Amino acid sequence: MNAHWPSVAIVGVGLIGGSAGRALLGRGLAKRVIGIGRSQASLDEARRTRAVTETSLDPSAVAEADLVLVAAGVSSIPGLLDAVDAEVKPGTLLTDAGSTKASIVSGWERKRSRRRGRFVGSHPLAGSHRRGPQAADEDLFTGRVVVVTPAKATPPEDVEAVGDFWSALGATVYLMPPREHDRIVAATSHAPHVMAAAIATATPAASLPFTAGGWRDTTRIAAGDAELWADILLDNAAPLAAAMRQIATASERLMAAIEAGDRRRLVTLLSRAKDARDALGS
Amino acid sequence: MNAHWPSVAIVGVGLIGGSAGRALLGRGLAKRVIGIGRSQASLDEARRTRAVTETSLDPSAVAEADLVLVAAGVSSIPGLLDAVDAEVKPGTLLTDAGSTKASIVSGWERKRSRRRGRFVGSHPLAGSHRRGPQAADEDLFTGRVVVVTPAKATPPEDVEAVGDFWSALGATVYLMPPREHDRIVAATSHAPHVMAAAIATATPAASLPFTAGGWRDTTRIAAGDAELWADILLDNAAPLAAAMRQIATASERLMAAIEAGDRRRLVTLLSRAKDARDALGS
Repeated sequence: MNAHWPSVAIVGVGLIGGSAGRALLGRGLAKRVIGIGRSQASLDEARRTRAVTETSLDPSAVAEADLVLVAAGVSSIPGLLDAVDAEVKPGTLLTDAGSTKASIVSGWERKRSRRRGRFVGSHPLAGSHRRGPQAADEDLFTGRVVVVTPAKATPPEDVEAVGDFWSALGATVYLMPPREHDRIVAATSHAPHVMAAAIATATPAASLPFTAGGWRDTTRIAAGDAELWADILLDNAAPLAAAMRQIATASERLMAAIEAGDRRRLVTLLSRAKDARDALGS
Repeated sequence: MNAHWPSVAIVGVGLIGGSAGRALLGRGLAKRVIGIGRSQASLDEARRTRAVTETSLDPSAVAEADLVLVAAGVSSIPGLLDAVDAEVKPGTLLTDAGSTKASIVSGWERKRSRRRGRFVGSHPLAGSHRRGPQAADEDLFTGRVVVVTPAKATPPEDVEAVGDFWSALGATVYLMPPREHDRIVAATSHAPHVMAAAIATATPAASLPFTAGGWRDTTRIAAGDAELWADILLDNAAPLAAAMRQIATASERLMAAIEAGDRRRLVTLLSRAKDARDALGS
């Protein structure tokens, strides 16, 4: 594989878009990276940090791209894909970086017959509570997982092309249907986010001086952007509710052992949790 | 304050005991630090890393100490305090480093009239999922909080002496009654631990490749020692159950907004969680 795109457009130059731009230019995978956004300040910062070679406030700048990455919040992606598709050269490859996939992919597929571009959805599992082009990192995707989520009608060569894009940035690519992706990230990302927010909220302010590493770690993602996360959680409500029920069941099992004073059972449950956690490393 | 103890005994030379020994010797606060434990290998490691100046497998070695720190798991502390008290010079200052306080302090107080030593309970909020003398760190307590929990009958000069001990190691000392301490750490430490274990357990093993920073952070403390944590959680069951109900209420509120599609309400709740988390720094 020798992926190369003369000209890539990135719509949204935050952490993900900015990092993709820096990786594309740093690795010599693209000659031009056109940064497109609503904030000239963010675009200027992206250009200053070599995440993009040129900038535009106008989505029609995608007309010069061979590949377009839409790296915006999930609620903006369907509208941006429509806007981008109206401007691209026929056959241009499009992908996104949204944290949910079913609604974005089905929004595209509903008008598949009238599309100019070829879209395959993606989700790089490389988010952070840090944001913006100043947080961008050329190696953000190195060794990270990107899930690529073809629809039933997506041609295999389009799937391969989008997979090659993320592989070229250093990521490990997994393929799965959009709904399967959403079910999995409900458990691995969205439910932990809700729990982190619940723990942060439930802790009385007067008790904050008495927090240590455990509280700090379990609540860290609650510092994420409230608007962005609201859109993610709302877009994945049903799988999220199912994942929350699994966590509630697990915590009720732990509390039943604790309230019954059943030490042997509690050690078994905590050891099981430890094994799951240890499988991942620190 | 110019705290100094010619001879300190530390019962249990793990992360907390080993770090206290290194800080005492490194800061010139003690001439002798007698490490007492059940494992000669741990004691040797503590001596090798200058956490202690001498070692003993026999608790009666506390007879030479002016101050004794019992840094063991919560379920061992009451028995160790009894054993230590039987051997110390009359008037020797004793403290502990247990994560719960009410049962330990009331166990001591029940026999107050027959005690040789003067005990005041402590809890350094400086735990970690790392363990053992090899994890010990001279600066572990620097800038960290230690809660000192006098009983009603504890003389003020004993409280001050134990506070001086932790201050001399660099900690910020707070005083509060044992039950108040237990209620607070149920929310700031024990409930987050149960939630971390529940999230780790509830996540299907096949989904682990699709975890990122959020899952890693929220579940990190689930890697803690299962036996040690079982004893902590069992010893604080009622305050823990109350803290878990607070978290359940907060998560139900979040899920109600999500399932109702109420974006404005959800953003308000997530912003409140973010404010609580941001108050603490990363």
